[in-house]
Amino acid sequence: MDHGRELVETEQSVFRAALIDAGLLVDAGVDGLYQRSGAFERVVRGIEAHASRAAAGEGGAQYYFPPLLPRADFEHTGYLRSFPNLLGAIEVFKGGDAEHAELLKAVDGGEDWTARLTPSDITLSSAACHALYPHVPLRIPGSGLRYEVQGYCFRHEPSLDPARMQSFRMHEFVYIGEASAALEHRDRWLQRGLTALSDLGLDVTSEEANDPFFGRAGRMLAANQRATALKFEITCPVSSQDQRTAIASANYHEAHFGEEFGLTTETGGTAHSACFGFGLERIALALFSRHGVASESWPESVRAALWP
Amino acid sequence: MDHGRELVETEQSVFRAALIDAGLLVDAGVDGLYQRSGAFERVVRGIEAHASRAAAGEGGAQYYFPPLLPRADFEHTGYLRSFPNLLGAIEVFKGGDAEHAELLKAVDGGEDWTARLTPSDITLSSAACHALYPHVPLRIPGSGLRYEVQGYCFRHEPSLDPARMQSFRMHEFVYIGEASAALEHRDRWLQRGLTALSDLGLDVTSEEANDPFFGRAGRMLAANQRATALKFEITCPVSSQDQRTAIASANYHEAHFGEEFGLTTETGGTAHSACFGFGLERIALALFSRHGVASESWPESVRAALWP
Repeated sequence: MDHGRELVETEQSVFRAALIDAGLLVDAGVDGLYQRSGAFERVVRGIEAHASRAAAGEGGAQYYFPPLLPRADFEHTGYLRSFPNLLGAIEVFKGGDAEHAELLKAVDGGEDWTARLTPSDITLSSAACHALYPHVPLRIPGSGLRYEVQGYCFRHEPSLDPARMQSFRMHEFVYIGEASAALEHRDRWLQRGLTALSDLGLDVTSEEANDPFFGRAGRMLAANQRATALKFEITCPVSSQDQRTAIASANYHEAHFGEEFGLTTETGGTAHSACFGFGLERIALALFSRHGVASESWPESVRAALWP
Repeated sequence: MDHGRELVETEQSVFRAALIDAGLLVDAGVDGLYQRSGAFERVVRGIEAHASRAAAGEGGAQYYFPPLLPRADFEHTGYLRSFPNLLGAIEVFKGGDAEHAELLKAVDGGEDWTARLTPSDITLSSAACHALYPHVPLRIPGSGLRYEVQGYCFRHEPSLDPARMQSFRMHEFVYIGEASAALEHRDRWLQRGLTALSDLGLDVTSEEANDPFFGRAGRMLAANQRATALKFEITCPVSSQDQRTAIASANYHEAHFGEEFGLTTETGGTAHSACFGFGLERIALALFSRHGVASESWPESVRAALWP
């Protein structure tokens, strides 16, 4: 319905303007790219610490990833097949003085100077856990392996909805091991996530979901993902009170990453994996939407949960 | 001297191996790209908070920047002219189903699939303060403007020296206003930085320096930067005990950014600017080099400064 879509866009733009007016976000000049104020960042860090505490000591080894991933690893994530429209690859300049003169001529002439760059061996990271799988032991011990990871992720989907940023942080809890334990990890974390987020005063619920697989073939992948109930999202009103936004997701990958990165279990099978990801910026936005733009005036229980 | 260079490389590789063995860094598979452990990140955040406290309430508005910059802003930073060899530009996929099939054929055939991507309007950020200048008021008030900013920066300079990362964070204190006040900001922060870093038990000193300007023309720019004493670095032993590494820098930009971004002062002139940047990863590495890889065993005074 056109009318419905317009209404949603209006709610989103009103929320976006409120965040910018309050100085929490600065529009960086490209849709979906924002600078965060100190107050916004303090909320993000509170959420991150709250998520760590939700693990109750069972989070596993912690890793913080830079926003970049080796291209060779990116090629194994399956992202090129499923979400090519969202990826970002890095180009660099490898010329000498003569090529530099040509580059500057292109810049000064308003031409596309990036045509003079060459591909690098690096891409932007699309999901925090992608950086993890290439570096875990190839033989996963019987009890499985747990990790708590975080990183800046990139999704090329320019939008005026502040909840759809091109550059945002994901804080994930990952399990790699036997299938049943991976499923159990996903389901336990879905419950933990619901509790942790409702402790922040958010109106959360969990829903079966599918990833936005690309193109014609993607429709089948999405249907299959739903039919096999691999993905759940925790949703909440963020930019719109009527249309809920996913602020966290619980994913069972089956043997996808195990196969791509050659991970086996003690029993000799391919390792399965699961992850639960908190979307740090989206949760922060949900909090600003729910409790107002002044975090110092949020309910005492919320402040105590974020900054104990 | 070849012998000297070999010696330095050996010291660097021994230090790199010690960091990786201790689990503080994980080699991400591309030279200069590392994943940080929770312990490493805790040190980085301690340094960041210590730097904020060094501002003694005079840091100004805080902003945290994503690792990406609009290309239009990047073109105004002067980076294309001075450091083209270090930049990173982002390419994305804009095709439909047919182009996707071709992309996957290239991937499966081991061809360069990035040739099928198209330029985006985004680049990687090269310095934290670059994201700031396009968004400050065009007319700078008489007392000038101060900012505390942080972000992930990219420098395409693959290296096995752990102190030369391709992706790292810079925490900066920026001043924009009259020339004399900008110079004063730089010099006051150089002293503050020396105090803050020596409070962490680091053997720091300040040195006149120049940026690594590119190519033949760059040699003149570097000489000019030294002749006019625009840049100072705080150096310290990091990967090598003999060859000091810059862990922070104090820069007076004269009217460079003011001109590029159209910033004027109350008196009608072009605004000048200065920044002091703490290199968060390099300072963390300096601490691990100085006090050992186990941060829980660092001297009490250092621990108290990082985690009061």
